[in-house]
Amino acid sequence: MRILVLGGDGYLGWPTSMHFACHGHEVLVVDNYLRRTIAQQTRSEALIANPNLHARAELFEALTHCHIEVRIGDCADFRFLEEVVSEFVPDAIIHYAEQPSAPYSMIGFPEAKLTLNNNLNATFNVVWAVLTHAPDCHIVKLGTMGEYGTPNIDIEEGWIEIEHNGRADKFLYPRQAGSLYHTTKVLDTDLLWFYVRTHGLRVTDLMQGPVYGISTEEADLDERLMPNFHYDDIFGTVVNRFLVQAAAGIPLTVYGRGGQIRGYLNLKDTLQCLSIAVENPPRHGEMRILNQFTEQFSVNQLAERVQRVGNGMGLRVQVRAIANPRKEKEEHYYNPVHSGLLQLGLQPHYMTDQVVAGMLSEVIRYRDQIDAGKILPRVSWNQSDGAASATARHAPLAHAQNAAETQQLDLPASVSALQ
Amino acid sequence: MRILVLGGDGYLGWPTSMHFACHGHEVLVVDNYLRRTIAQQTRSEALIANPNLHARAELFEALTHCHIEVRIGDCADFRFLEEVVSEFVPDAIIHYAEQPSAPYSMIGFPEAKLTLNNNLNATFNVVWAVLTHAPDCHIVKLGTMGEYGTPNIDIEEGWIEIEHNGRADKFLYPRQAGSLYHTTKVLDTDLLWFYVRTHGLRVTDLMQGPVYGISTEEADLDERLMPNFHYDDIFGTVVNRFLVQAAAGIPLTVYGRGGQIRGYLNLKDTLQCLSIAVENPPRHGEMRILNQFTEQFSVNQLAERVQRVGNGMGLRVQVRAIANPRKEKEEHYYNPVHSGLLQLGLQPHYMTDQVVAGMLSEVIRYRDQIDAGKILPRVSWNQSDGAASATARHAPLAHAQNAAETQQLDLPASVSALQ
Repeated sequence: MRILVLGGDGYLGWPTSMHFACHGHEVLVVDNYLRRTIAQQTRSEALIANPNLHARAELFEALTHCHIEVRIGDCADFRFLEEVVSEFVPDAIIHYAEQPSAPYSMIGFPEAKLTLNNNLNATFNVVWAVLTHAPDCHIVKLGTMGEYGTPNIDIEEGWIEIEHNGRADKFLYPRQAGSLYHTTKVLDTDLLWFYVRTHGLRVTDLMQGPVYGISTEEADLDERLMPNFHYDDIFGTVVNRFLVQAAAGIPLTVYGRGGQIRGYLNLKDTLQCLSIAVENPPRHGEMRILNQFTEQFSVNQLAERVQRVGNGMGLRVQVRAIANPRKEKEEHYYNPVHSGLLQLGLQPHYMTDQVVAGMLSEVIRYRDQIDAGKILPRVSWNQSDGAASATARHAPLAHAQNAAETQQLDLPASVSALQ
Repeated sequence: MRILVLGGDGYLGWPTSMHFACHGHEVLVVDNYLRRTIAQQTRSEALIANPNLHARAELFEALTHCHIEVRIGDCADFRFLEEVVSEFVPDAIIHYAEQPSAPYSMIGFPEAKLTLNNNLNATFNVVWAVLTHAPDCHIVKLGTMGEYGTPNIDIEEGWIEIEHNGRADKFLYPRQAGSLYHTTKVLDTDLLWFYVRTHGLRVTDLMQGPVYGISTEEADLDERLMPNFHYDDIFGTVVNRFLVQAAAGIPLTVYGRGGQIRGYLNLKDTLQCLSIAVENPPRHGEMRILNQFTEQFSVNQLAERVQRVGNGMGLRVQVRAIANPRKEKEEHYYNPVHSGLLQLGLQPHYMTDQVVAGMLSEVIRYRDQIDAGKILPRVSWNQSDGAASATARHAPLAHAQNAAETQQLDLPASVSALQ
């Protein structure tokens, strides 16, 4: 199949591209390096420096004889995207091309505006590029479990049957997200569902939980093929951040009471899920929604697990609760269905102690490159006065950074020196 | 109170501005004439030429000694809007500043893109201008009953309690709209609700049904103060369009089977509802949602009523079903709650035969100005091939216009000549 990966430079985009290229598909990746730009601006670079896409694709081809075509450009620019789609005529588009950081979207006005406009216009342009130039193309959209929030009822897979006053109908499951980034994903869903039912698009919306891991079959071939592994407060997901903290001898920082439960999955399972989605396209006019995670943990459970495994490896891992920079429930009901992908054949890689130890060993190899100044929360959801800096770029980030630094974590001297 | 009316040149914006100015409030209106621009581009000008805002405000002040301040500018431009809000520091913002036409939003890519970006950014900028410069300001947002669509269950006022597998929670009532324009209102709701619960905004969301009428206390003072009365397929609401068709001797055009039921209200009641909303601000962190209409009719019922009243006035009114250009249910359950505004004191002006006769008499005075080429549907929801013209501005409009013209309505010779 002809697979177009939008946002192919990302933590998930690059491994996805290699995966499909090595499984007999024709792969074109598109990216505008927005995440790299933001990472530089916010001191949030990944643990291991990643070569650019052209260099990675060349190296990948030299090692595997699998080809990945690369185009650099902005999916929020319709002229560019429609040119790509009209020339490549993909069978499937995997759409990762969004600003993916919740904290970034909460810094202030410019960051929120960038997130809203980038994400909505990228999705809108994908819709119209497909309608115009590849109407049979299957759009595989990365949503997030965060769209649902943490309701007091069971979370279904995308849809819910509501009985009310003796009548019934089926609707999109209610969505209420915890950050502006997550809210843009809700808006994406609304937009896609509108065009699916009005213009007959074929869409799979993958409601993904936080992903962890650094290893995939192809990434393991060479360090320079590894996904960008973020451990900072802007782009880092919680498990990856804990691994880096454990490796660096920094206490694992639990936000608030730590009872926040989410559904997690291994990076390897993200690739499996994407394959399953691409191999099972919905009909025209159908929007298939799948909850994409394999097991659920509270933040405290994750911290305990990384601590136990780390201590078993001779590290001395501490866990410390800090003030929660986010607005979220810290104890809540959480029971999301996630049977759709299993029924379609997903074979989960669960987070065993062995898996945690493997990831930790990998991170320890790069211990010297850890910048502890990136880890503590620098963005607060609660800074209602943050609005005062609506047009002062990154002032709130600097402010929050100072606030985090005054929390006086007991950092090892070797790490403190890096700040 | 200091009232900022965004979109103050519109069918509702201008009467609202006069109404508040004559009831002791300090009123600033903002508009960028987007609707006038689109009306010209799509041959959809209003029945009666309206002076520009400065001229209307001057005339209004000469007649009433009430002052309306005018600023011309684009609410989707944050620099402009924040300047306005920081200087005026409104107690309430009435936010009408959106591209309001469903058919326009369905013409093709450029119109859809304009609608999405204009409406979302205007709302986003209002949020941030308030957070930054007027945090106590009450945002009164015009939503639409169209956000709910036509579900098979009763429609509540904005929120619904869902019981599911033995547990319960309260959510935004599910929304699934019938056009891209209506979908942008859904996105607005998601966005506002996010900022309400995260940053403590005070928002009233008025879910309004189609408005009809031409007369308000202030508009009746002088023809030049009348609201822009649209009867075209782009901006005209169905009742106003039927009145013009009856006056011009053109058959009333019912889309499809005519069983489409909506909640309607008189323009005078829109003004009452806005007053009620402004006088009853929600708390910080509260989003009050009210369904704003007074009675419901099917399209067939409206056609029959206009026909009966018109015939009673000596007109010979015909009703003709034409192919439905929209994708919508033509027979459906419809039972929306609308008690909130009544409980807050709304005294409805119902659509009696006398009210219809009054409106019809007014329209008949302008019969010579009717352009029959504007009335028939020129935009189709079903033109999946319309996507092919994603970048060809207005090609689909021209195409649909031809399609409409080939439907061979029996137009009176005097009206046909205008086409």
